[in-house]
Amino acid sequence: MSILEFLDYAGVAVFAATGALAASRKHLDVIGYIFFASVTGIGGGTLRDLVLGATPVFWIENPLYLLVCTGSAMVVYLSARRMESRYRFLVWLDAVGLSAYCVMGAAKGLAATGSATVALVTGVLTATCGGILRDLLAGEPSVLMRPEIYVTAALIGAGVFTGLTLFEVPMIFASALGVISAFCVRGGALKYGWTLPVGDPRPPRHPDDVL
Amino acid sequence: MSILEFLDYAGVAVFAATGALAASRKHLDVIGYIFFASVTGIGGGTLRDLVLGATPVFWIENPLYLLVCTGSAMVVYLSARRMESRYRFLVWLDAVGLSAYCVMGAAKGLAATGSATVALVTGVLTATCGGILRDLLAGEPSVLMRPEIYVTAALIGAGVFTGLTLFEVPMIFASALGVISAFCVRGGALKYGWTLPVGDPRPPRHPDDVL
Amino acid sequence: MSILEFLDYAGVAVFAATGALAASRKHLDVIGYIFFASVTGIGGGTLRDLVLGATPVFWIENPLYLLVCTGSAMVVYLSARRMESRYRFLVWLDAVGLSAYCVMGAAKGLAATGSATVALVTGVLTATCGGILRDLLAGEPSVLMRPEIYVTAALIGAGVFTGLTLFEVPMIFASALGVISAFCVRGGALKYGWTLPVGDPRPPRHPDDVL
Repeated sequence: MSILEFLDYAGVAVFAATGALAASRKHLDVIGYIFFASVTGIGGGTLRDLVLGATPVFWIENPLYLLVCTGSAMVVYLSARRMESRYRFLVWLDAVGLSAYCVMGAAKGLAATGSATVALVTGVLTATCGGILRDLLAGEPSVLMRPEIYVTAALIGAGVFTGLTLFEVPMIFASALGVISAFCVRGGALKYGWTLPVGDPRPPRHPDDVL
Repeated sequence: MSILEFLDYAGVAVFAATGALAASRKHLDVIGYIFFASVTGIGGGTLRDLVLGATPVFWIENPLYLLVCTGSAMVVYLSARRMESRYRFLVWLDAVGLSAYCVMGAAKGLAATGSATVALVTGVLTATCGGILRDLLAGEPSVLMRPEIYVTAALIGAGVFTGLTLFEVPMIFASALGVISAFCVRGGALKYGWTLPVGDPRPPRHPDDVL
Repeated sequence: MSILEFLDYAGVAVFAATGALAASRKHLDVIGYIFFASVTGIGGGTLRDLVLGATPVFWIENPLYLLVCTGSAMVVYLSARRMESRYRFLVWLDAVGLSAYCVMGAAKGLAATGSATVALVTGVLTATCGGILRDLLAGEPSVLMRPEIYVTAALIGAGVFTGLTLFEVPMIFASALGVISAFCVRGGALKYGWTLPVGDPRPPRHPDDVL
């Protein structure tokens, strides 16, 4: 198993676990856990494959990914009661998944097109869309809307991987450094509340006030 | 017209009607009814075709589906005022659509890949995504979040169809039994409030408490 | 550059700006502006290309679109503070984008399939989906739910373009008249509150009352 395959399964498994934790917060049944785990685990990669035209998408070609999601869901189903804070666990797992998936997504985009710009975008897309879908379907405020650095961490991880690969650094080092960069940035943001400056801090007016 | 074609049009028509009922609840105009009817009617099948790589998707190949959605929207537009409860009608129609579409989706997934796992997933996907999209776009709490059995009914319908087909039961019996199983499970859940046990009943904490 | 190429870049740029304005209203950082600008700018066209099977999608084939989105995001990031009402600016820009994109989407659908029905649908889809995605991801009430005419304007623009093209009116006139029709309808709706009659004005009941 290459490092990219390992990152792929690791990303699916931890994103799936965050989906199952969202299902737990919403008091769903076991099938709800599996449904949310699958949508979150394979959502980002599905969108990546669709825009690249790599269809049938990866989990149709290899249903093992679905079993990984189901397994993650079962582990969470059986253990969530023992967690002190499901949400804290969710956001930290999401950080691990983001770090694995921004490199995976960039690698697939780079392999498919040779374009560094596309690699950055597919890296960010793959890393963020599973979590965005999870929050949308659960009706929770999107992780995108929180002030701590999120998309930026995926962009940095994808950028480090893509840059090193273009300089012909071996795949294993480029991947590892990409994952570590993304995780340090996102983890630091979670732990120390790192943010970037906001563009315009005025409160939004209500739509009805202004038409 | 084969039983699968019949289920396909029936699924589109009844899901379209649920979309139009959501439009009615939101006080939209006639174009809004048609828009919601179309998104709900063809949304699940569109996602199924995209992940299978069966593009252009079914309603581009055969625009008759769009006319079915428009027709359903018009019927609801002209008759919704006479309904006692639009929401109750919506969820029961949704149950009919779910039952038709879990079999249709499983049949397409099985025909395209031969994999029973894929058939279960495309069955569930096709059956649930139209309703999920409808609720998301209407800004209503997702039917996924309600306690009564929902995804499970689609999984059972897809499983009965796929299992019987793999044992070479003729298509018409496998389809009919799949539809009936799904409808009995979902209908019973609606009527008697059937649920499966939840994994972890602790209330969710607010995200801001725990970071 | 043909008129369709011009409309394409113009649609991407103005939709991207509306995404950046939504990011501004949500107090995101500069990467958040670029993320929202890109999702809104290329979202509708991405869905159009996916359902038509035109993959890899347009911005993978030509990453210049992503630079246009980034540029729009930067302009908004640097200037939003000086705007009196970001939301009013957002809805008017959205009207411009809608008008450009309903024609672009209809042109692509017509070229790919020759079907007028498909052209209408891809026109509406391309014109509305970027804004729908933007509102969904930002957690704002969807522009679809507002009473003023919206989807109808896209449908009229796509219809004018498609009808004139089928009567062999030269592309430049058909395009210009399509854009102008859509903009007049949407602009009039914004300025004068134009609406179409609603189907059923009864308030929705709460889902829990009726199951």
